[in-house]
Amino acid sequence: MITVTSGITVLEAAKEAGIGIRSECGGEGSCGKCRVIIKNQAEVSGATAVEKKHLSSSELTNGLRLACCACVQGNLAVMVPSESRIGKRKIQALGAERNVKLNPAIRKLHLELSKPTIYDAQPDFERLLESLQRRGITDLEIDLELLQTLPNILREAEWEVTVTVWNDKKIVSVEEGNTEKNRYGFSVDIGTSKIVGYLVDLTSGEVIAFKSIENPQLIRGEDIITRIAYAQADDENFKELHQALIETINSLIVGACQESNVKTRDVYEVTVVGNTAMHHFFLGIQTKNLLFAPYVPAIKRAVNIKAASLKIDTNPLGNVHVLPNIAGFVGADAVADVLATGMHKMEKMCLLIDIGTNGEVFVGNKQSIVACSCAAGPAFEGMHIEHGMKAGTGAIERVRIDSETLNVEFVTIDDEKPVGICGSGVVDAVAEMFRSGVINQRGDFNKNLETKHLRIVNGETKFVIAWKHETSLGNDITISRRDIQEMQLAKAALHTGATVLMKEMNVVEADIKHAFIAGAFGKYLSPESAKLIGLIPDVAAERIEFVGNTAVSGAKRALVSMQARSEAQKISASVNYVELMTAPSFRKEFLDSIFLPHRNIEKYPSVQNQLQWLKIL
Amino acid sequence: MITVTSGITVLEAAKEAGIGIRSECGGEGSCGKCRVIIKNQAEVSGATAVEKKHLSSSELTNGLRLACCACVQGNLAVMVPSESRIGKRKIQALGAERNVKLNPAIRKLHLELSKPTIYDAQPDFERLLESLQRRGITDLEIDLELLQTLPNILREAEWEVTVTVWNDKKIVSVEEGNTEKNRYGFSVDIGTSKIVGYLVDLTSGEVIAFKSIENPQLIRGEDIITRIAYAQADDENFKELHQALIETINSLIVGACQESNVKTRDVYEVTVVGNTAMHHFFLGIQTKNLLFAPYVPAIKRAVNIKAASLKIDTNPLGNVHVLPNIAGFVGADAVADVLATGMHKMEKMCLLIDIGTNGEVFVGNKQSIVACSCAAGPAFEGMHIEHGMKAGTGAIERVRIDSETLNVEFVTIDDEKPVGICGSGVVDAVAEMFRSGVINQRGDFNKNLETKHLRIVNGETKFVIAWKHETSLGNDITISRRDIQEMQLAKAALHTGATVLMKEMNVVEADIKHAFIAGAFGKYLSPESAKLIGLIPDVAAERIEFVGNTAVSGAKRALVSMQARSEAQKISASVNYVELMTAPSFRKEFLDSIFLPHRNIEKYPSVQNQLQWLKIL
Repeated sequence: MITVTSGITVLEAAKEAGIGIRSECGGEGSCGKCRVIIKNQAEVSGATAVEKKHLSSSELTNGLRLACCACVQGNLAVMVPSESRIGKRKIQALGAERNVKLNPAIRKLHLELSKPTIYDAQPDFERLLESLQRRGITDLEIDLELLQTLPNILREAEWEVTVTVWNDKKIVSVEEGNTEKNRYGFSVDIGTSKIVGYLVDLTSGEVIAFKSIENPQLIRGEDIITRIAYAQADDENFKELHQALIETINSLIVGACQESNVKTRDVYEVTVVGNTAMHHFFLGIQTKNLLFAPYVPAIKRAVNIKAASLKIDTNPLGNVHVLPNIAGFVGADAVADVLATGMHKMEKMCLLIDIGTNGEVFVGNKQSIVACSCAAGPAFEGMHIEHGMKAGTGAIERVRIDSETLNVEFVTIDDEKPVGICGSGVVDAVAEMFRSGVINQRGDFNKNLETKHLRIVNGETKFVIAWKHETSLGNDITISRRDIQEMQLAKAALHTGATVLMKEMNVVEADIKHAFIAGAFGKYLSPESAKLIGLIPDVAAERIEFVGNTAVSGAKRALVSMQARSEAQKISASVNYVELMTAPSFRKEFLDSIFLPHRNIEKYPSVQNQLQWLKIL
Repeated sequence: MITVTSGITVLEAAKEAGIGIRSECGGEGSCGKCRVIIKNQAEVSGATAVEKKHLSSSELTNGLRLACCACVQGNLAVMVPSESRIGKRKIQALGAERNVKLNPAIRKLHLELSKPTIYDAQPDFERLLESLQRRGITDLEIDLELLQTLPNILREAEWEVTVTVWNDKKIVSVEEGNTEKNRYGFSVDIGTSKIVGYLVDLTSGEVIAFKSIENPQLIRGEDIITRIAYAQADDENFKELHQALIETINSLIVGACQESNVKTRDVYEVTVVGNTAMHHFFLGIQTKNLLFAPYVPAIKRAVNIKAASLKIDTNPLGNVHVLPNIAGFVGADAVADVLATGMHKMEKMCLLIDIGTNGEVFVGNKQSIVACSCAAGPAFEGMHIEHGMKAGTGAIERVRIDSETLNVEFVTIDDEKPVGICGSGVVDAVAEMFRSGVINQRGDFNKNLETKHLRIVNGETKFVIAWKHETSLGNDITISRRDIQEMQLAKAALHTGATVLMKEMNVVEADIKHAFIAGAFGKYLSPESAKLIGLIPDVAAERIEFVGNTAVSGAKRALVSMQARSEAQKISASVNYVELMTAPSFRKEFLDSIFLPHRNIEKYPSVQNQLQWLKIL
């Protein structure tokens, strides 16, 4: 029981009481995550338009409300469902980081200028340049906006200033006094499903805040193709998708700055990666040519743009550096993946799979690298799965099925009662069902099995992972044939990519010395399960390395190191893109890959060994 | 008698009838030049707010109206005073032009690109760059705005485009088909009193239109100091003065383009010169530091800005190149003066006087040049002179007084009845009065002279140049003691500058081999009269060259030649600025220079020879 001022929102009331309610948009009504149940609706304000957007009418009837919208008007009992509680999120958004020598594009120099006199009436800008020249920086440009205010800044600062220089080419700020320590940057990976950002202290090179949010374009389609088609239909639609990215990235920047007590004007550079569609949407470049053969992007090389031109909420004269693309949908995120893993510098043959709605696969080493894009769809994000959910508190993330009894054990995030099943849980569940003979290589249920876990609901067979009484939902958490099929299609897309690329490079599984598995899944994916279902090729477990969100860590690498930026340029220029759809073996390979783990089981000797029932067959 | 549709303006009616009425703003109500007299006011629309701004209430009562505002509502008799008629303007706005090798910053290249195929899916921008590389241009930048539209342009043009490149550094436009011939630039001199612009065909290097208009800042003060003080008082005032320049320059660009059938988007570069105050106002840089010692400008070097950033009405991605400054008030216009005359390349000692409200004087040659700024005031523009006027139709531009009879002969512009006296006329009048003994060295009237030309009006002596019956005014056109004094102060300012600089360079009049007289006066100034009053030092007539508006011709030189731009940079860096006010001899020299031609008549041997009365004395 807590006492609050009448009229404040339920979210604010909860905050006062120290109760954590999820609110990824910060209470702005845009994320829809702060769902609470309020039974005595008479004591709260009426449902707002924002709530009607996020909640169905039956949900509203059942007392579901958004905590950021519902205002307290009397005594209330509020139930916070576990999915709305702030728990330790399990998304591995932090990618692996190799050592990097700090050498950011942004430098700050504290200068004490001599005051002009009648004997030294040198103009202001030249006075500044001369002082910078003594520090070894020459030929600097300045934007008109800054030049316009320069005379006032210099005089108000009594000629003691800190100059921020970008890339030894351009002055982006002149500040009063010594502000050398306030030097920040931001790195963003615009994923098809999720946008992840790092706030980085450019002096230490450390990530001081991390933010992640759903890609706001999701409401216009889960996959890239739908969004491009939407954008093409009307110029306003296109602008909407561009704007949505800008606004969401700004919310990440502002949020990260607030929580770290950093002023946004002290953020001088943003590095951005994303697949070519996200890259184009972000830059406001029409995406339609990516949709039709020959799938031509507008630009390949890296782009530098003044933050104000893109309305990015950092220092307005700061720089936005968008990493270079490769080809087709294989964009700056792929370059960042390679950059983060360092496979472009390795002697040994590497495989890199970036698991995501729009996945990328790479095979190669310092000699050469081939890459392709795979439309895996959002199954790994828990989408299109009946009881699927994102990796948050209460999500089933690991599943184990006893081959004898078919009893199920599971682990949830934060050890809460399960509310759903996240990507790694679905991979585990399908793998375990396959291993224990619940499903066959085609993914079909073995209907002869006698187990209470197999239930037929409305004519559809489902396997129960968690019983009703174990959950906080009031119903069983199950995996259906359709869920299995979603996973089969998703993993087949990635596997096909890997197979086609290995053929292209003329290597087999045994030649792969490093298999990097990137993506939000991170370490929570079981390598055994991944191999059991054929999500990754049959590479020895000790050669598999989970590297997390390499796209954002590659972006961060480019943020803190100019050397990394020039490496990115080389990667962009040298990686050979393979257009999967036109590869001669694509169709057959895809159909073969739908099987668990593959139509040709000999490709998975490690799986063969495990499958007792297969041996019996 | 003409018949027109009721409701059209008098200006439109006059146009239909082929009657030229001055309208420098193009009928927008901003120039106030289209004054006409309409007696039957019942048959026209009422006076507008615009008219009340330009016309006094007594003028309105007397039937004066602006032709662009007054609408025809019945039968009208309209009188067009000669000062409102379009006549051949006598301002020499075209400056002298030395030969120049065409090498503008703006290049256009017609390209036929290969269409992308599935075997050649190179991104659009890289495809364009590769094609440009084959033409020898590498490392080009592109603005985001253009990149955003590039995919559409290329496909709509079916891959045949013309690319406009600035300075071999940046792509500023990509146009459908072959538009190589449509390549224009604009050059502007922002004078304290007048703004002059050239529209230049960058293919031929020829000026295809010339425009001139009053500096709109005049309403906030005739001299720079008053305007800077006004700007300093309030930030809104400052913005007003900046905006006024931008809008007026845009009116020149649009006007010149319209009259030449050129699209403004085919104008890709504008070069701009002006003294440092005009330079700063144009760029939106606070001018107050120019007002107080040590008179420090914000920037010295040349500036390049995207036209859209300054809201200049050319191709929005075009470039605005502002030439470099020297020091104090000696700005980019001074650099342009030197550039146009070529004195920085001459072996022989040169003197360059740019006569204007804010005049500049230079002495030197290829070894070294010194320069100073002289606040001459607007007397040379006919301002502060009782019957003064600008050099337009009906202005007395030459005056001759018979030494014996003191009869006056005069020449008017366009041979119309005189309506006033312009700058060259005033110089002539004062010189002739001095030569014929009407005034003495101090500028005082010889009141013992018996001539009907000397009249006393309200206790003030005036010399009649044109009798009432000769004019179209209805009153005499005279020169008063105060008019003479204005001219003395103006010429003293310039003469002092020349003297101080000659001392600085350790040269005397005889050492000057080229005396360049620049300014709107142009050829219409009599060198003999100029020497008689001491406006220019006593240099032999054959060494004097009238070079017109060298500021705008220097700006044009920089527009058509990159070589000239680097020369301008050298001039800016090498010319030694002399701060006249702090020169030890300034005060004495100025007081001596107020005399006609100088207190020390020996400095003007050529004048001494002419002065019969002086010899008699």
